[in-house]
Amino acid sequence: MYRIVIYPHQKQDSLINLLSDQEHYLRRVVRLNNGQNFIAMDGKGYSWEVKLTDKGGEIIHVIEENRELSIEVTLMVALPKGNGFEDIIRCTTELGVNKLQPVISHRTLLKPSENKWERWHKIAVESAEQSERQIVPYIAKPIPVMEAFTTMKKLNIPKYIAVARTDAPHLLNFLTRDLWDSPSQIIIATGCEGGWNTDEIQWAIASNFQEVSLGKRILRAITAPITAMSLISGVMETNNK
Amino acid sequence: MYRIVIYPHQKQDSLINLLSDQEHYLRRVVRLNNGQNFIAMDGKGYSWEVKLTDKGGEIIHVIEENRELSIEVTLMVALPKGNGFEDIIRCTTELGVNKLQPVISHRTLLKPSENKWERWHKIAVESAEQSERQIVPYIAKPIPVMEAFTTMKKLNIPKYIAVARTDAPHLLNFLTRDLWDSPSQIIIATGCEGGWNTDEIQWAIASNFQEVSLGKRILRAITAPITAMSLISGVMETNNK
Repeated sequence: MYRIVIYPHQKQDSLINLLSDQEHYLRRVVRLNNGQNFIAMDGKGYSWEVKLTDKGGEIIHVIEENRELSIEVTLMVALPKGNGFEDIIRCTTELGVNKLQPVISHRTLLKPSENKWERWHKIAVESAEQSERQIVPYIAKPIPVMEAFTTMKKLNIPKYIAVARTDAPHLLNFLTRDLWDSPSQIIIATGCEGGWNTDEIQWAIASNFQEVSLGKRILRAITAPITAMSLISGVMETNNK
Repeated sequence: MYRIVIYPHQKQDSLINLLSDQEHYLRRVVRLNNGQNFIAMDGKGYSWEVKLTDKGGEIIHVIEENRELSIEVTLMVALPKGNGFEDIIRCTTELGVNKLQPVISHRTLLKPSENKWERWHKIAVESAEQSERQIVPYIAKPIPVMEAFTTMKKLNIPKYIAVARTDAPHLLNFLTRDLWDSPSQIIIATGCEGGWNTDEIQWAIASNFQEVSLGKRILRAITAPITAMSLISGVMETNNK
């Protein structure tokens, strides 16, 4: 069934007021007619099966489904060049990420404009719909990396920083141990092209981030967060079996 | 240090005859001068540190390094639309894949041309160089999916088929059990947009493929093989710690 993400104000009792682009999508793109059903989700965890009518959408019933991980995952991603961050949003949304915090590190070349953020949010919405999630990941505004480490310092949750060419143990070693205790949140930071510089790694360690490896090979800035997220969701979903 | 992949015939005793595009890359793109060193690898497991000279490359010594997984991984990938397979080659090469077998399934829309294959091979070479691997993954020519299952039927190694909306256990459950015995090879098949059809899944099971899940969410055709490869290399590299 087709899915759309709605804003809270669109739901009024058992009616959903469709926005014009949603109406266009449902009637013209996926070609639903009056009387046919779709799924509306508020991106915060609630979903409804809805019938398309002339008035918009009539809620038929609440949908009880949960494809979310039972842990809140924040990926802190040093922005890669070009449109790389868009691929990261797509893939990690499918894999269950909750928050993406783009950061500007010493080696970051990209200077994202304000309308980039709107595009990123739109990609997160589309990917959440396609992957049939209940929650739309929150894409934060980019901040300097040192500020991000400092803000996260006081959070007493598992925090990792992925480093290439390191002797640090593999992330998977930590996950199988740390996620067993069912922490409510977890954070992992991945670098951009050329990796973190020494100051950044030191600052991360001083902010109680654990250095981890994502394997012996050198991953691109796009591949690293997808790999980390694959491992996190894999461990979470086998722990719960 | 910069890396290039050479053909076997380019190495003659302690000399490496550079091809014109390799010479161009080393001298014009990364701007090496005579007397500066780079790494030449044959893509089959051997690497040498080489000095750039007017005669081409003079081998200084053999490099003993190994960033390869201690298992041979074949990904059988139903070709996604557009250039999606190129992203799959890039990411999974970085993650240590050995062979990519593109297959044409019932829902495959792409009809790849012959020169696509050359482009795919080139991407595998570049990704192997960038991720500092010793081996260039072999990209096979696309074949019909049923033929691929039948050919692989007799191989007595762990074989998996990733299926969406399934009750099958997560791939990670099988990996932690099956890779513990150190099999020499492993195969995993992932579908294209819309997934496998029922016949394909039945045929895979009849060919001794194990149905597996890659998590509760619906992954795109591009994300599924990257996720599978992340899990395989993660388990292999923590088993060996």
